[in-house]
Amino acid sequence: MSKAIFYHAGCPVCVAAEQNVAAALDPQRYNVEVVHLGEAKTRVAEAEQAGVKSVPALVLDGQPYHINFGAGIDALK
Amino acid sequence: MSKAIFYHAGCPVCVAAEQNVAAALDPQRYNVEVVHLGEAKTRVAEAEQAGVKSVPALVLDGQPYHINFGAGIDALK
Repeated sequence: MSKAIFYHAGCPVCVAAEQNVAAALDPQRYNVEVVHLGEAKTRVAEAEQAGVKSVPALVLDGQPYHINFGAGIDALK
Repeated sequence: MSKAIFYHAGCPVCVAAEQNVAAALDPQRYNVEVVHLGEAKTRVAEAEQAGVKSVPALVLDGQPYHINFGAGIDALK
């Protein structure tokens, strides 16, 4: 089982990406964790270390994939 | 079965997104078509109509999701 983390900030762009891209991942292969960085500010550093520069972003096997653009990560600190 | 189209241009950013994000979609629910816009220039207009502004991009159920940034679509015309 691979780990997928979907970082977002509750914005409309984030919600659309969560409901479509994150929800489209294969549940047989991916364990998807959804993290709202506006509510879990302690995890902003973790997202940055994974290379996340904006939300929404999906980190798959440690690699960051930014999906469209909702907000820069600096706005969430 | 939903339709997913992954548009790319063969760039390293595109290949990474294809091998990770596009390949992570649930094959039980999504039929994924991979389109290389550099080789299939006739499909650039179709991608633009779906709202694709850069590659790599994934169009899920008609909605465009740009994944990181490889190249702007204008560079593929």
